[in-house]
Amino acid sequence: MKIIETIKDMKFFVQQAKEKGLSIGLVPTMGSLHEGHLTLMRQAKKECDVVVVSIFVNPTQFGPNEDYGKYPRDLTGDSEQASKAGVEVIFHPQVQEMYPKGYNSFIEIDGITQKLCGLSRPGHFRGVATIVAKLLNIIQPDKAFFGQKDAQQVLVLQRMVSDLNMNVILEIVPIVRERDGLAMSSRNAFLSEEERGAALILYRSLQLAQQLVAKGELNVEKVKHQVIMNIQGEERAQIDYVEIHSYPLLENVDVIGEKALLALAVRIGNTRLIDNIILEG
Amino acid sequence: MKIIETIKDMKFFVQQAKEKGLSIGLVPTMGSLHEGHLTLMRQAKKECDVVVVSIFVNPTQFGPNEDYGKYPRDLTGDSEQASKAGVEVIFHPQVQEMYPKGYNSFIEIDGITQKLCGLSRPGHFRGVATIVAKLLNIIQPDKAFFGQKDAQQVLVLQRMVSDLNMNVILEIVPIVRERDGLAMSSRNAFLSEEERGAALILYRSLQLAQQLVAKGELNVEKVKHQVIMNIQGEERAQIDYVEIHSYPLLENVDVIGEKALLALAVRIGNTRLIDNIILEG
Repeated sequence: MKIIETIKDMKFFVQQAKEKGLSIGLVPTMGSLHEGHLTLMRQAKKECDVVVVSIFVNPTQFGPNEDYGKYPRDLTGDSEQASKAGVEVIFHPQVQEMYPKGYNSFIEIDGITQKLCGLSRPGHFRGVATIVAKLLNIIQPDKAFFGQKDAQQVLVLQRMVSDLNMNVILEIVPIVRERDGLAMSSRNAFLSEEERGAALILYRSLQLAQQLVAKGELNVEKVKHQVIMNIQGEERAQIDYVEIHSYPLLENVDVIGEKALLALAVRIGNTRLIDNIILEG
Repeated sequence: MKIIETIKDMKFFVQQAKEKGLSIGLVPTMGSLHEGHLTLMRQAKKECDVVVVSIFVNPTQFGPNEDYGKYPRDLTGDSEQASKAGVEVIFHPQVQEMYPKGYNSFIEIDGITQKLCGLSRPGHFRGVATIVAKLLNIIQPDKAFFGQKDAQQVLVLQRMVSDLNMNVILEIVPIVRERDGLAMSSRNAFLSEEERGAALILYRSLQLAQQLVAKGELNVEKVKHQVIMNIQGEERAQIDYVEIHSYPLLENVDVIGEKALLALAVRIGNTRLIDNIILEG
């Protein structure tokens, strides 16, 4: 497995692969790889000849008071895992390689970014869309793989690829969970033992909502209320948002229709976790 | 010569050309073709196997009180001219093909868009960057050709292509002028006979500035003052802006250094014309 650090070298590798007629799968990550990422890589390996994993903690998607500085970084451990998953190349550029002096171009997705994480993390999706567009232009993959854990991110990127007529297929892979239900996240590493237990409240609240819907409760406010009450029962949890929107348009709705997204962002101690489920009314 | 109206058909044509190993040159236009556009096409024909001209009056780069509605459109005349210039394909999509319902993605270039036409036409360069990015993704050209007449547009697009790591070479072609010096522009068609004469004040003012610099006058304010006085001597002319900035960074400067851009936007009657020259101090 190769580790490539410059855009020029990465484009050269891509050009060579394309000349050989090989298809390319891209798994964009911020490193600190876990089973969720590895699932994306294995899926990419199934569908593409060559798998490239980008590892880049992207500063433009973090707010000024967020955890950019302390976001976990472990290139050695990541390389071992990616290699075992059959990855051919890790693209691991430095910040100044991706955002050199004078950098000034950004992709803005309006509409669906004006809610959920887009509201609590202003500029987050501008940073996400921009870095993904850059990676897509550098690596020119046939397919790029993302996890449903970041449900709004997926919708933003699908919007971008469709609106800007980009030549890539986005493959979305279901959320991967620990045995007890906690969604895999690099930020789980921040949790103390007590917090790790408390963090289960996210998944349990999603399950509660699913049960309520299964019993016929389709009123959005009532389901949200139950979920909020449930999370508030956990003293280490502080709600950032609990929202139900139509899926995939993320419109405000009063009733859970054919498909609705229940999305949670909850702080456990100092760690902000997200999780979601598609409710089918 | 083919006229293609859908993105799907255009991408299919591009895919076939690429499979044959043909290089593609793109000349993006808003139609109403003149000798400036034809020069771009002939240059593209020299450098690329296949030349695609896009003709699309792009609504997102016009302000609410601008001339989107009355911008000249002449597909029949344009087709004849493009065909004679050796163009293989005209890509001529409808507005709803490029901006379907729910469209929400835009490319913003900060910095150099905060002056000149970026100030007098808010949102203009956001529209330009977005449509050019879309055309580059649809047509995937090896080279795209733009005229230096739109000097700030050229810098914005060079910034975008570099920042977003796009896989295209931008070729910039010098301003093409009428015999008497008026820069070619589709908007020249709006000028009455008297206005056509008055419009010469733009080129004459650029020449005046060049003469002043040749004589050793490098003070930005003094050169600007002379240019402004000269334009104000033409009663049909109303200045939108007269600015001198460093080139290519467009920074504010007091002294004309190695390269500076003198850029003008002047209304002649109801028609807003732009022109520019690179001054070498």
